[in-house]
Amino acid sequence: MTAPPDITAIQAAWRLIQPHVHYTPLMHSRLLDAHTGARIGFKCENLQRVGAFKARGACNAVFSLSDAEARNGVATHSSGNHGAALAMAAAQRGMAAHIVMPEGVPGVKREAVAAYGARIIDCEPTLAAREAALEALVGETGAQAVHPYKDPRVIAGQGTVALEILEQMPELEVLVVPVGGGGLLSGVALAVKALRPEVEVVAAEPAGADDAFRSFGLGELQPQTNPQTIADGLRAGLGEINFGIIQRHVDTILTVEESSIIEAMRLQWTRLKSVVEPSGAVSFAALLEHRERFAGRQVACVISGGNVDIDRLPWHAQ
Amino acid sequence: MTAPPDITAIQAAWRLIQPHVHYTPLMHSRLLDAHTGARIGFKCENLQRVGAFKARGACNAVFSLSDAEARNGVATHSSGNHGAALAMAAAQRGMAAHIVMPEGVPGVKREAVAAYGARIIDCEPTLAAREAALEALVGETGAQAVHPYKDPRVIAGQGTVALEILEQMPELEVLVVPVGGGGLLSGVALAVKALRPEVEVVAAEPAGADDAFRSFGLGELQPQTNPQTIADGLRAGLGEINFGIIQRHVDTILTVEESSIIEAMRLQWTRLKSVVEPSGAVSFAALLEHRERFAGRQVACVISGGNVDIDRLPWHAQ
Repeated sequence: MTAPPDITAIQAAWRLIQPHVHYTPLMHSRLLDAHTGARIGFKCENLQRVGAFKARGACNAVFSLSDAEARNGVATHSSGNHGAALAMAAAQRGMAAHIVMPEGVPGVKREAVAAYGARIIDCEPTLAAREAALEALVGETGAQAVHPYKDPRVIAGQGTVALEILEQMPELEVLVVPVGGGGLLSGVALAVKALRPEVEVVAAEPAGADDAFRSFGLGELQPQTNPQTIADGLRAGLGEINFGIIQRHVDTILTVEESSIIEAMRLQWTRLKSVVEPSGAVSFAALLEHRERFAGRQVACVISGGNVDIDRLPWHAQ
Repeated sequence: MTAPPDITAIQAAWRLIQPHVHYTPLMHSRLLDAHTGARIGFKCENLQRVGAFKARGACNAVFSLSDAEARNGVATHSSGNHGAALAMAAAQRGMAAHIVMPEGVPGVKREAVAAYGARIIDCEPTLAAREAALEALVGETGAQAVHPYKDPRVIAGQGTVALEILEQMPELEVLVVPVGGGGLLSGVALAVKALRPEVEVVAAEPAGADDAFRSFGLGELQPQTNPQTIADGLRAGLGEINFGIIQRHVDTILTVEESSIIEAMRLQWTRLKSVVEPSGAVSFAALLEHRERFAGRQVACVISGGNVDIDRLPWHAQ
């Protein structure tokens, strides 16, 4: 299962997950078009089930298991949206989900996982502890491990975002996608370059967590060290399988400052009336910060998620 | 122009304004359905142009003027969404708009009006000063005054919200609408009872600004005195023409507490990922506070607007 998916796998994923996820709307705003000089379609994955695109990859992983593989459930470690997505997908199929969660995860995220009936396994908040706990869990239960972004089934599922955008915006010239671990970016880039190679694929990454930018520039995977960004969904280090796809199919990676992320969020909240999490605003932040690249063009901008603590917004004094 | 509109006027308004306003989406949430026990369609007028249903009535008023009537522009006094809506509508038709605005209106609201090229006339923040300034303005300019909720053209425009809901949710059993001055409620009630009289029309009003509730109970128009609610769009007193329509066509008026309004807002922000202003959350607050009336039924819930200062949210310490 380590070969990257191809367009056939992404199209198959789309058929497979359609009963379980939303075909999310593409929103437009005259004000934000005027503000940027571009014609923007915002792909609202914050309106996806569980509030993030992660529902797509998790559903594809879960529903592509054979009955024999599915018997013992699925497992992952997650501090964020992937855990909830996998719990939701497993509940849809009527199977067990085991989610390793590090201590310190906000209660609201634990509750989201628990609400789908998943079993939560606590662990220390380190990557080593998370991986050890997951390995022990898989050994004990026989559950199928589903990695949040390295799993080819997950990459194929995330790529379905692009199939919808190409249908919704046939005049598309540029697609802007946030990059963290690279599951969404690699799936989307694969799909776009297979179907519409002339469309430019641009990744947006926080300057404070720029391992993808550095890896892309050097042509060699670089580690993510001490990421500093409010975009908590983009702090993960790029996966190796994801990096290979990104090298082949992504045109550019742009970094954005924290102030641009916050400005983008505020504009999306006040103008689109849409609740966007910091990671979800990073693609639009790239349009604001690199305006000249996009002016006059037809741009799709992926809002990857909307799961944010409305009691602790980044523009309030901390 | 003091006779109430009929269904023919509302249908004509819909044809007239269609090029200028959005056919807004009806959103669903499995989580909020489970939370309330009802099957809810949220009519997202927060995604309407200018961020509120007011765009409909203003466009109908502006585009139903004859060329002779339109020559000298339109005028109104407004501290909120109606001023921006009238400015937008006038700009669409290429005519002048004069908006009397009381001192103390937030800068963001003044900017919204100014951004549409309208002329702003300042006045003291009292109803008497506003009405005097508007009268002087109309005398001076010959502009057509467009009242935010008493004008039959405005009522007909607001009623088009119901035409869309009836198309979007043919299984509808109950419609819940916030009431302030009564423009939206009277237009919607007229439309629903003309086309689907078996559908129940329920108004939702803050308990701290309950003149509609009191008037409806007593059968006589009662003044709005010292309204106390965060739902700033619902502090206006019910209009007489609106009250007449409401008496004939509305089934029930329910009041809601401030705490329910805030709970409704929070649920709509976190579950629908939708930025809803306090007034816009009052209809859903009625579902939360009067749960037993709605459980098991097909309910449309109008989110009337999304213009809220995200730096001053009601759940933050003031």
